[in-house]
Amino acid sequence: MIKTNLDAFIQAIEGIKTITDPAQIAKLSQDYHTFSPVLVPKLAGKVGDIVVRPDNEQEVIKVAAACAKHRIPVTVRGAGTGNYGQCVPLHGGVILDMTQMQEVLWVQPGVARVEAGAKLANIDKKAREVGWEIRLAPSTYRTATIGGFIAGGSGGIGSIEYGFLADRGNILALRVVTLEDEPQVIELRGDDVQKVNHAWGINGIITEVEIPLGPAYPWAEVIVTFNDFMTAAKFGQALGVADGMIKKMIAIFASPIPQYFLGLQPYLPQGTHAALLMVAEPSLELLPGLVQEYHGQITYQQTGKGINLGEYTWNHTTLHARTVDTSITYLQSLFPPDPNLQLLGDMYHYFRDEVMMHVEFIRTQGRVTAAGLQLVRYTTEERLNEIISYLEGQGVFIANPHSYIIEDGGRKVIDPEQLKFKEMVDPYGLMNPGKSRVLGAGN
Amino acid sequence: MIKTNLDAFIQAIEGIKTITDPAQIAKLSQDYHTFSPVLVPKLAGKVGDIVVRPDNEQEVIKVAAACAKHRIPVTVRGAGTGNYGQCVPLHGGVILDMTQMQEVLWVQPGVARVEAGAKLANIDKKAREVGWEIRLAPSTYRTATIGGFIAGGSGGIGSIEYGFLADRGNILALRVVTLEDEPQVIELRGDDVQKVNHAWGINGIITEVEIPLGPAYPWAEVIVTFNDFMTAAKFGQALGVADGMIKKMIAIFASPIPQYFLGLQPYLPQGTHAALLMVAEPSLELLPGLVQEYHGQITYQQTGKGINLGEYTWNHTTLHARTVDTSITYLQSLFPPDPNLQLLGDMYHYFRDEVMMHVEFIRTQGRVTAAGLQLVRYTTEERLNEIISYLEGQGVFIANPHSYIIEDGGRKVIDPEQLKFKEMVDPYGLMNPGKSRVLGAGN
Repeated sequence: MIKTNLDAFIQAIEGIKTITDPAQIAKLSQDYHTFSPVLVPKLAGKVGDIVVRPDNEQEVIKVAAACAKHRIPVTVRGAGTGNYGQCVPLHGGVILDMTQMQEVLWVQPGVARVEAGAKLANIDKKAREVGWEIRLAPSTYRTATIGGFIAGGSGGIGSIEYGFLADRGNILALRVVTLEDEPQVIELRGDDVQKVNHAWGINGIITEVEIPLGPAYPWAEVIVTFNDFMTAAKFGQALGVADGMIKKMIAIFASPIPQYFLGLQPYLPQGTHAALLMVAEPSLELLPGLVQEYHGQITYQQTGKGINLGEYTWNHTTLHARTVDTSITYLQSLFPPDPNLQLLGDMYHYFRDEVMMHVEFIRTQGRVTAAGLQLVRYTTEERLNEIISYLEGQGVFIANPHSYIIEDGGRKVIDPEQLKFKEMVDPYGLMNPGKSRVLGAGN
Repeated sequence: MIKTNLDAFIQAIEGIKTITDPAQIAKLSQDYHTFSPVLVPKLAGKVGDIVVRPDNEQEVIKVAAACAKHRIPVTVRGAGTGNYGQCVPLHGGVILDMTQMQEVLWVQPGVARVEAGAKLANIDKKAREVGWEIRLAPSTYRTATIGGFIAGGSGGIGSIEYGFLADRGNILALRVVTLEDEPQVIELRGDDVQKVNHAWGINGIITEVEIPLGPAYPWAEVIVTFNDFMTAAKFGQALGVADGMIKKMIAIFASPIPQYFLGLQPYLPQGTHAALLMVAEPSLELLPGLVQEYHGQITYQQTGKGINLGEYTWNHTTLHARTVDTSITYLQSLFPPDPNLQLLGDMYHYFRDEVMMHVEFIRTQGRVTAAGLQLVRYTTEERLNEIISYLEGQGVFIANPHSYIIEDGGRKVIDPEQLKFKEMVDPYGLMNPGKSRVLGAGN
């Protein structure tokens, strides 16, 4: 950014918290794309020029107006727990850190309205006080913000019950500030929320979010071990389709993945495959019968406060594995629904130890299926691409976490409605520029 | 029954409430098998010799011992809202009316324990006081008892979320008294509840029930009308698989069925097909978008206290139709899961007005599918059987409500575990005799 521009910008937003210390800026220009040996060199050195931390929507509007006026790129971020480089600024500019706007505005039966920077764990805590809880959460729920989760995430713990964030009903309203000379504040409700959902912050600055809540069941955490991976996976599928049993997490890990879970070693005998579960206490009594059908062993079961098994699942699995072995990277994938898990079995046997199988059972559009977050023993980018191509060729859907291009991820194309909305809310193309192919990334 | 036996029995249960008035006995020997012109003549004149109304389990034990001693058949009943002749005594004897045992023993988060004769509406009311509600209910929830629902029912309102009673987790415990000289009291938990679930009272006298509860969402009632039946059905399927939207009832009616709903006429324009829905208020805002996709019209929407749309669905549909036209009878069926509803469409077009299509969308074993309670313009038993055979031949599962034989209903075979349990709890074969083929019915 041209220095005079930056000076003028700083003057225009006087009174609003900023960070100008380069070390701090560098830190706040990062996310967890570091899981990818492919992304690391590509995003190396990409930093913002300044971090701005608004306290309220009025300040966001002021920042937006100043950015528009001075044509300064804006990269919005929450806790930076994304894995696709979503909040790494490719063209410098302002890092808009939303974590100061963290108020839970209200909680009603089944619904909460919160500021975009509210932490998921905090929303959950407030909701539980009145008998409800958040429906969906990434494994990073302790630090992740709701705005960041919606802008950059897709699902997680709870998806076995409620599907993905993109499924109708999982986001009720989004309030966004536009990047115009005179920024507007727009409230999107109903299906219109999809104009901003999972748009990586290219479509306006989310300031408030209204989300549905689920019932605050008393949850039990359970670990089950198996001698055979596919039996473990079939157990996961069977629990997934047991409609009378309430659960919010079914994570299945092929050996040797459980060995990376250092904190869980007492419950994970060497060489076994494992299921980490969260099951509602009223359904817990039915679990042993199902476990027995699949020849599993319950090695850990905790009602009330447990060891937070959620923090070993979804992307945390990769985090734990990389703590032990930094050469490990991962994939994000979705298997087609199939009660027999044929393709899952084929891919498990085909790659064996090179692509260690980790699946999370989810339900979306009425079908229970396996979302894969396979761990890959990385050798070269070429080999990684070969693995991805092979999986895609076999019918596995890949949301490639080794690309920072939106279209390479879960959506493949940016919805025309999103593009139309983009034109309106970001006429100068200043929001998270360079992340979308259709908007000219790589040109 | 031999009169001396009856006298001895009455003496043995002294102090326990009985009814000996023939008119009253006749009434309490009935259920809603009267929907079936085939069953009516077959069950005509089948009455008990005496009605016994125990106040507590001690009295049940006393009655059971006396019945065993004097070899008196026992037909257990709740409110008698079944449709298969489940509680019509084929061989006289004792009608054991459980409706006096109606206490809600306790309610905890997600679980309730109640006496078998507790009315579903009453359990629901008590549960809602602490933020929960019953998961599954027949359309007769205002009068039906939980014991009767479990012994003779299968699912209903709520099945789109939780599946059938037979799905693991929907019954947590059953306490039964055996029909032995020295009756035992047995508590069945976990998968063992299936030994008594849907056994039509041949497997012990249920005295207490532990059931899981669902979250007490604020529910909205909605009526949507459509110009085309299959579009209405596809809307039902689409709402069924919308995992982010919480609903507990999706009932779809082909024209002219809506015309039988006299109380709803303002909302059901002549000639239209209709959907009656119960949707959680936090999901309601998403409904118009979905309705629009399927070219429907929302004609009624009520949050808070509505007109109890549930009382127009499931078997109540048949009740309303028969109020207008007593020549109408019905079927109970299940279509195989199919997002395209091909078979449903074929059957709708094949039979047209003779078999008027009424489906309830449910989810069981992980799949959303259509349960049919078609209305049939009855001509002869032969033609009815022809219709049933044709449907079965096309792949529609029929739980024939024109037979009082357990095996002709939803289960087809009685589970070996149930038969083993039967031998133990009813050594003299006194419980609801004549209803099972494998136990010698029709011999």
